[in-house]
Amino acid sequence: MASVRIREAKEGDCGSILRLIRELAEYEKLSDQVKITEEALRADGFGENPFYHCLVAEILPAPGQPQGPCVVGYGLYYFIYSTWTGRNVYLEDIYVKPEYRGQGIGSKIIRKVAEVALDKGCSQFRLAVLDWNKRAMDLYKALGAQDLTEAEGWHSFRFEREAMRELAGK
Amino acid sequence: MASVRIREAKEGDCGSILRLIRELAEYEKLSDQVKITEEALRADGFGENPFYHCLVAEILPAPGQPQGPCVVGYGLYYFIYSTWTGRNVYLEDIYVKPEYRGQGIGSKIIRKVAEVALDKGCSQFRLAVLDWNKRAMDLYKALGAQDLTEAEGWHSFRFEREAMRELAGK
Repeated sequence: MASVRIREAKEGDCGSILRLIRELAEYEKLSDQVKITEEALRADGFGENPFYHCLVAEILPAPGQPQGPCVVGYGLYYFIYSTWTGRNVYLEDIYVKPEYRGQGIGSKIIRKVAEVALDKGCSQFRLAVLDWNKRAMDLYKALGAQDLTEAEGWHSFRFEREAMRELAGK
Repeated sequence: MASVRIREAKEGDCGSILRLIRELAEYEKLSDQVKITEEALRADGFGENPFYHCLVAEILPAPGQPQGPCVVGYGLYYFIYSTWTGRNVYLEDIYVKPEYRGQGIGSKIIRKVAEVALDKGCSQFRLAVLDWNKRAMDLYKALGAQDLTEAEGWHSFRFEREAMRELAGK
């Protein structure tokens, strides 16, 4: 069986990552909201002060197989700040292609994010999930996460550009 | 009547900000979760690559009044990254002391955050609110924000340090 490796993304992975971002948005039934480009992903993640960090899961071919490694999942995260506990990590996206699910690749990505977070002195890592995505919710809970919307009543709010322009009088 | 000024926080404001952080956590009935110190706020917000940015609302005394300006509210934000729209702003905390509410100070802070976000090329700004805090929810909606937990079903999840250690095998 082919083996899986979780590694830091390189700039050359941005094309693969963008394809997976689009697949995830389709799965979430929100693909009309994807405006990002490969160029933006390259510029924003691989400059001097990157705005995000990304892990990719790649399938390594068995010895003797002709094809190269193939990116089948990703986890994109960045550092956030809690006024209660200081610097923390936010996992913005995590995705594994449907045909590679059930092999623990998602858990491997989450374990790696937890490791990075601890290494950077973070005491929490947060993420968001859609309420109908029971499979993902169950996985995060099984791995030890708490559903804060359920437990404490947190709701996510968002201002879009038009609302922001009105607020700022621009 | 005394006037209100919204300005960027300075390092010397960290004592006032920490007092307000504690007041907010008490209001949210979650004050046992506050572990941050004034030293951490100074180091994390005012170094070369600050982990957060902060606005403070201060009451300017009327001419001839003996006391100095007094910080009565704050908004603490940082930059996040959306795989759909790129760089965005997250307003982690917003708080106005109870005796200064109803004067539009919270709205002024939000307007200023929207202005900063647009200036930095962001197309969204996000925040979270507790479901029983109807006053805050109504304000954000009136200012044009969408409740994404209600509209799309997003739930916030969090791993704490113990869960992270187990995940990372540390």
